Amino acid sequence: MNELSKHQHTVKAFSEELEKLTADVSSMGGLAEDAVSRAMEAVLNRDAELAAKVVEGDARIDAMQREIEKQIVRLLALRQPMASDLRIVIAALKIVSDLERIGDLAKSTARRTKVLNKTDPLPATPAVERMGLLVQGHLRQVLDAYASGEIKHAVGVWERDEDVDEHYNALFRDVIAQMMEDKALVGPGAHLLFIAKNLERIGDHATNIAEEIHYAVTGTELKGERPRGPRPELPE
Amino acid sequence: MNELSKHQHTVKAFSEELEKLTADVSSMGGLAEDAVSRAMEAVLNRDAELAAKVVEGDARIDAMQREIEKQIVRLLALRQPMASDLRIVIAALKIVSDLERIGDLAKSTARRTKVLNKTDPLPATPAVERMGLLVQGHLRQVLDAYASGEIKHAVGVWERDEDVDEHYNALFRDVIAQMMEDKALVGPGAHLLFIAKNLERIGDHATNIAEEIHYAVTGTELKGERPRGPRPELPE
Repeated sequence: MNELSKHQHTVKAFSEELEKLTADVSSMGGLAEDAVSRAMEAVLNRDAELAAKVVEGDARIDAMQREIEKQIVRLLALRQPMASDLRIVIAALKIVSDLERIGDLAKSTARRTKVLNKTDPLPATPAVERMGLLVQGHLRQVLDAYASGEIKHAVGVWERDEDVDEHYNALFRDVIAQMMEDKALVGPGAHLLFIAKNLERIGDHATNIAEEIHYAVTGTELKGERPRGPRPELPE
Repeated sequence: MNELSKHQHTVKAFSEELEKLTADVSSMGGLAEDAVSRAMEAVLNRDAELAAKVVEGDARIDAMQREIEKQIVRLLALRQPMASDLRIVIAALKIVSDLERIGDLAKSTARRTKVLNKTDPLPATPAVERMGLLVQGHLRQVLDAYASGEIKHAVGVWERDEDVDEHYNALFRDVIAQMMEDKALVGPGAHLLFIAKNLERIGDHATNIAEEIHYAVTGTELKGERPRGPRPELPE
């Protein structure tokens, strides 16, 4: 094998490794997305069995993160990527950390099903469902943007993060009002507040992933491009 | 300059860069630690002015993360570190992400001061203070372990993560009971629950940092070495 073909071979092997990395991150994204939608299904259908499956399934998402991180360390050590390749690798490392957190939040949501099943569903439940659908939509869009490299969808999610915050604040007020009206709802209401908070944080992680995709593709920061106003006052 | 001295020069420059990276991560750790202790001080002393300073100061922590990430990308591209050097760099990238989240959680805690100041302090406040001191102790220990490379302190924090969970669960039950007794406490009680949850999550991030230090120093995973039992049932 002459030097040039050896070089081409190395380049080919490297680009295959990068493709495998991107494909693995996408698969992990699919698992995280699935965990969120199943956790919400468990909460809304009061399905303790499905909730238990989501809790159990989180170990697979964690294992996938560890596996991908090993791949990344190997790739950095052996291939020493530069410029846009290096950005793709760094972004992958950050995205899997967001996906792992999303898995944890889905697990935390699912775990609350059991407690919620002990009383009648709270009147705020449909609002939680709507918030769940909004956040799941954002997550799907950033994962599609990651798989396709079409950053405009990622930027769209990033710009609409405030919708999630508004939903959350309105929901917070409603649940507190319901808890004040009926003290039997205080315990389950608190768990519903945490579920809403989990959804808000899943939305934040989707926004982070949008920023990471933007950085990988363009080399520039999305953060700070749009001056974000102060967050709305906390609901009371 | 002959080849050997050029090589020595490169090695020296590189080890200086690694030292600068570690020092910068430690400084960022100091800022995050400070944000947590000031946020707790603001909550406990009902000090809205101090709370506003914590909220404002978070931008500096975020900026520091971006600056360190740029340093890391430059270092990976120019120095192409291997083996333990590469692990140190990867660990730094992960630790700054934990520290940034700790800063956010301190900010979220401080923001709740204003709402809490509208009613008398909840009876559970001293328990929140104790939980805060426990978590701050863990954070200080992992940051000391990071600065010194003495991993036994990091492992100690990692092993005691369950103490924080137990504190949190006991506190959750107390606050819910207080909210049920007096409906004027429902709103502030919910914010106090979120503060306790923030502290629990700061504790989780301290545990993550302990794992990252262990990996950087030894090259092996702390995760999975001790089979963790299932988490305790959620309080109702």
